[in-house]
Amino acid sequence: MARIKKSPEVRSKELIDCAERLFFQHGYEDTTVNDVIREADVSKGAFYHYFVSKEALLEAVATRLAKRNLEELQLLAEDPSLDAVGQLNALFAGSRRLKLEMAPQLKNTFNALFKPENVVLYHRIDEALQAASLPIITEILRRGHAQGALDAPDPETAAMMLLQLRLSVAKMMHKALQLSEAGDLDGAAAMLDSWMRTYGTAIERFLKLPEGSIEVTEPGFARTFLQA
Amino acid sequence: MARIKKSPEVRSKELIDCAERLFFQHGYEDTTVNDVIREADVSKGAFYHYFVSKEALLEAVATRLAKRNLEELQLLAEDPSLDAVGQLNALFAGSRRLKLEMAPQLKNTFNALFKPENVVLYHRIDEALQAASLPIITEILRRGHAQGALDAPDPETAAMMLLQLRLSVAKMMHKALQLSEAGDLDGAAAMLDSWMRTYGTAIERFLKLPEGSIEVTEPGFARTFLQA
Repeated sequence: MARIKKSPEVRSKELIDCAERLFFQHGYEDTTVNDVIREADVSKGAFYHYFVSKEALLEAVATRLAKRNLEELQLLAEDPSLDAVGQLNALFAGSRRLKLEMAPQLKNTFNALFKPENVVLYHRIDEALQAASLPIITEILRRGHAQGALDAPDPETAAMMLLQLRLSVAKMMHKALQLSEAGDLDGAAAMLDSWMRTYGTAIERFLKLPEGSIEVTEPGFARTFLQA
Repeated sequence: MARIKKSPEVRSKELIDCAERLFFQHGYEDTTVNDVIREADVSKGAFYHYFVSKEALLEAVATRLAKRNLEELQLLAEDPSLDAVGQLNALFAGSRRLKLEMAPQLKNTFNALFKPENVVLYHRIDEALQAASLPIITEILRRGHAQGALDAPDPETAAMMLLQLRLSVAKMMHKALQLSEAGDLDGAAAMLDSWMRTYGTAIERFLKLPEGSIEVTEPGFARTFLQA
């Protein structure tokens, strides 16, 4: 059967779609370039025209996931009617809404990402997310510091600190999901709530904000997320 | 010549000793399993009885280094003549001293660990280090909070936050080493100094300590480390 001629953009997108599906279904380590080639129904030559290696494909999957996540959040971060603290809170609220909307997919993603065979995938997505978020957070902190709304004399370093702390939220969400799936919903919700409150406190104190000004979480969020 | 019969513990320790020496002398990449086998004077079969791969051997080397570090640091953390803040500072001072003493080995270790092909290994060592450090830091924070020396109502969560931030120090040290090796020692030292100061500030603010009470770094440390 003759292969259908497709534009490079379409072909490249299809390869990333296939790779994403296979990575999450079977794990990154257990997916080969040949699996992707078969699933996408392209020739080996065509594949290597777009991606030099499985790692390059991983990079593309990670970057696209990060970009999708961030496009929506960036709009919130740029709302001109909000001050810097309002923008940070809008980011957290948006992130909570996304988490609830995408809870079933997120649960699968977490379960896939935290498998030992996916450490490389997880790290790459992390790095892509951090790289994409850094300028957004840095700009909020820069503006907030200039306006005297918060204290971050070195906004880029401060943004890196906040993003580093944020990594632990994903770890905690995964732990809470495991606990909840093992039957202890109450314990899991309490752990996640407590972790997110401490994360909020850490941000407030680090940026010298009044207690209660950062709303990382809201009452009932952890339970709703775990049950969604 | 007949091989001398040795106990499994002795043999395994000798292999790790040899690997450590060779990794640090020639670099991880340029050391083969055959080099280790030759240096340790064991058969190939004997080697693979103890370690399934070169990566397993590197993990053993790094884990042992981490354990050694922690043993010494634990003594500092338990010094009864110090209050909680003094114990945290003793940990940082001890960690700086170890870093300077072991700078050449550390540089090789970082260079090996931050290679893309070592992400899995890096992640595992990180986890081992975090798990081992958590009870030490938790206990310091618990005692400090009870004595009113610092504010950490949930000491274990607070300790996890501090350890999460600490992970970024290793990342930054590696970035600074790369920059320094590329010829920009001044830029590298400035970046590492600034990062460590911000890390100290983050800890002070998070634990509600007076400014300047946490001494993560000291003047000239970054440059001395990078040049060591």
